[in-house]
Amino acid sequence: MNYTKRRKALRQALQGDILILSAAYAPRNYAANTYPFHQDATFRYFTGLKDPNAALLIEDSGKETLFVSVPDPDDVIWTGPVPSPRELADRANIENTADYADLGKHLSLSTLWIEPYDFQLKLRLASWLGLSAKDLASHASRELGRAIIALRSIKDDDEIAELDAAIALTRRMLANARAAIEPGRLESDILAALLAPAIAKERAQAFEPIVTTHGETLHNESYCHTIMPQDMVLIDCGAESIEGYCADITRTFPAGDNFTTRQRAIYNAVLSAQKAGIAQTTIQGTSQYDVHMAACRALTIALQEIGLMHGDIEESLATGAHALFMPHGIGHMLGLDAHDMENFGDDVGYAPGTSRSTQFGLNALRLHRRLEPGFVLTVEPGCYFIPELIDRWQATHHLEQFINYRELEKYRDSRGIRIEDDILITPSGSRVLGPGIEK
Amino acid sequence: MNYTKRRKALRQALQGDILILSAAYAPRNYAANTYPFHQDATFRYFTGLKDPNAALLIEDSGKETLFVSVPDPDDVIWTGPVPSPRELADRANIENTADYADLGKHLSLSTLWIEPYDFQLKLRLASWLGLSAKDLASHASRELGRAIIALRSIKDDDEIAELDAAIALTRRMLANARAAIEPGRLESDILAALLAPAIAKERAQAFEPIVTTHGETLHNESYCHTIMPQDMVLIDCGAESIEGYCADITRTFPAGDNFTTRQRAIYNAVLSAQKAGIAQTTIQGTSQYDVHMAACRALTIALQEIGLMHGDIEESLATGAHALFMPHGIGHMLGLDAHDMENFGDDVGYAPGTSRSTQFGLNALRLHRRLEPGFVLTVEPGCYFIPELIDRWQATHHLEQFINYRELEKYRDSRGIRIEDDILITPSGSRVLGPGIEK
Repeated sequence: MNYTKRRKALRQALQGDILILSAAYAPRNYAANTYPFHQDATFRYFTGLKDPNAALLIEDSGKETLFVSVPDPDDVIWTGPVPSPRELADRANIENTADYADLGKHLSLSTLWIEPYDFQLKLRLASWLGLSAKDLASHASRELGRAIIALRSIKDDDEIAELDAAIALTRRMLANARAAIEPGRLESDILAALLAPAIAKERAQAFEPIVTTHGETLHNESYCHTIMPQDMVLIDCGAESIEGYCADITRTFPAGDNFTTRQRAIYNAVLSAQKAGIAQTTIQGTSQYDVHMAACRALTIALQEIGLMHGDIEESLATGAHALFMPHGIGHMLGLDAHDMENFGDDVGYAPGTSRSTQFGLNALRLHRRLEPGFVLTVEPGCYFIPELIDRWQATHHLEQFINYRELEKYRDSRGIRIEDDILITPSGSRVLGPGIEK
Repeated sequence: MNYTKRRKALRQALQGDILILSAAYAPRNYAANTYPFHQDATFRYFTGLKDPNAALLIEDSGKETLFVSVPDPDDVIWTGPVPSPRELADRANIENTADYADLGKHLSLSTLWIEPYDFQLKLRLASWLGLSAKDLASHASRELGRAIIALRSIKDDDEIAELDAAIALTRRMLANARAAIEPGRLESDILAALLAPAIAKERAQAFEPIVTTHGETLHNESYCHTIMPQDMVLIDCGAESIEGYCADITRTFPAGDNFTTRQRAIYNAVLSAQKAGIAQTTIQGTSQYDVHMAACRALTIALQEIGLMHGDIEESLATGAHALFMPHGIGHMLGLDAHDMENFGDDVGYAPGTSRSTQFGLNALRLHRRLEPGFVLTVEPGCYFIPELIDRWQATHHLEQFINYRELEKYRDSRGIRIEDDILITPSGSRVLGPGIEK
């Protein structure tokens, strides 16, 4: 990775001194028992360093300084030998080093920085600047955020290679998990099989994997159910690459050898939606909104064929009737974060002057803007049968001109299916990243 | 677990309104991508609840209120159905419920609380009380902390059963790991084998496991080394039980079928130190300081037999010469935290009027006080060859009347061994918890 080039591009995009903070250790139940350290993606993007309690200051003059804590010689018994500040700076090709404890003296209210999502860093930054933590948001530089987004949104070849590698490992995880699926086992048994290949490679997960027979709960983080013969197992997971790039892949498997007839019909509906979404990404100048709608159109057509929807397709789409079945967006950016740069808010996914729809379903679309070569994004349609949501809509006859509530009764316990791949936008179209993963 | 009884005991120990906060989700790289939730041990001790963003208010009148966030009906698509505030309160046998968003209105500067270790909670609490986060420490109630320590230090039968279960699972983890140890494999391969039985049971780890061929780095959290034929693999780990009680066990295994002659000599020295420490715990009225010194005495004797130490044993012990080989304390309390209640500082381990020694080695002794029936603690001596520490001591001829630096040269690359078990102090002596784990 060419960190020097990235820093130079950032400096040229802005005037003023720029501060980029590394992540801090997050205490789990006391200061010394922390969660596994996870580096801040932006700090990593500009330095490649994996160390906590560090900061990069790029001054308007071009002077670059790495602030790190000076190691305490007594720590050697706990941590072993650690690299010196100079060694760390050399790894990132940064000319100057200084003590992290002195960082506050180098900052002023005109320094450009982004608001930390970490609460310890909020407190530190507020203290350095003489602000209260709640006033940070109004002093953060949205301009800096946008400059970082502009750089991180376009993945270069080195980054694509990392993403490919992360997906290749994720494929192995999924193969190992699939082999373990068997009626009578727990979801957590499958989780253990899923994680083993990544743990053995010392690779973190980009997010807590979903391994569930209840795919209709979109962010299901429990693994307590026993797999029954007629169940499906939805797995949404992604390993990180060596340099921290994230895969994000979803597959839905039958618990037994085959899907039931209804499951197969729904699966094929989702697959047609995913194919339509991916086809849309190949069209130059398309937006992720277009990808979302292409997938929703295919889903609506398929659900009409099954008999769960009816009525005029375009009218149905305009009202968002399909969101009863797919209440989330088609996908998001992917990179050093699973939802890449989500800490910057909607400046990542929405062009200036645009903002999220308030329509149910579309309001969950994280990425909306025109797609450019170098963007990496997920295409992850799903079809879910959420009893509480069905009941709420049906009670008010909501959009019944498009939804066949009577037929839907039969599918009420069909739970959820999602299929997700990671797509690179290229100058001539798009490419599904990673080795093929069976679906 | 009798949560009602625990709360009553706490109320009777203190005057004033008592606030106990649950943990919050800790953001990993943006707000929605969090670390796996880990409940605060004190909140769990008094309620049994595993939910974030909750609080228990015990008023001086005896009125108990559970503050929880009122679920947003739209969240059902993300989280599935969630229990109502009333259902949660019923689980903990708490009479009243209120909205977490209103908690601030129920607090005053006379409310008793302990300082959160979590930075998000520091900010919240400071905001509710109109304080700045850095002023929290001086307003926290040390008296409340001591009352909680008094209760949590004495484990009842229900808690012992949980600890036994956590250790039984940890034994299975260690057996699985040991079977995977083989020259040529990575430390991380062994980690994957170690974790699998716990993941399959949906049980968290009490702390990030240590799985290392470099046991001389005490808190080694990397798993990158390839296991060589003459290596030892030190594994320090502990599963949590269903109710969150922590095991903490260390074993050191040879990579091949047998230890080398030197490894065996050192292993036996550590084993004799552990036996001496455990024997000391059976003596009524003993302190953990006595346990520490008993282990250090046995270690010193054994290292003299090997030829690495010499001189008068008691003088050697008084100077802390053994700390070159064992620079840490003999053990700590164990319970709902791995270092139980470490967030309360040295009030846990040191009786009023006593404080940590400044002597190297002894300054790392977390638990020092007289042991009482119901205490659960670790006994975990080790013997380490830390090249940087040896060089530093030798350069100044430090304590050479007790250390045979010439002989030590031969052992310089012998790395580290530790053996750890978890001990319950009983009215008549002590008991090693859990099923026997081979050593």
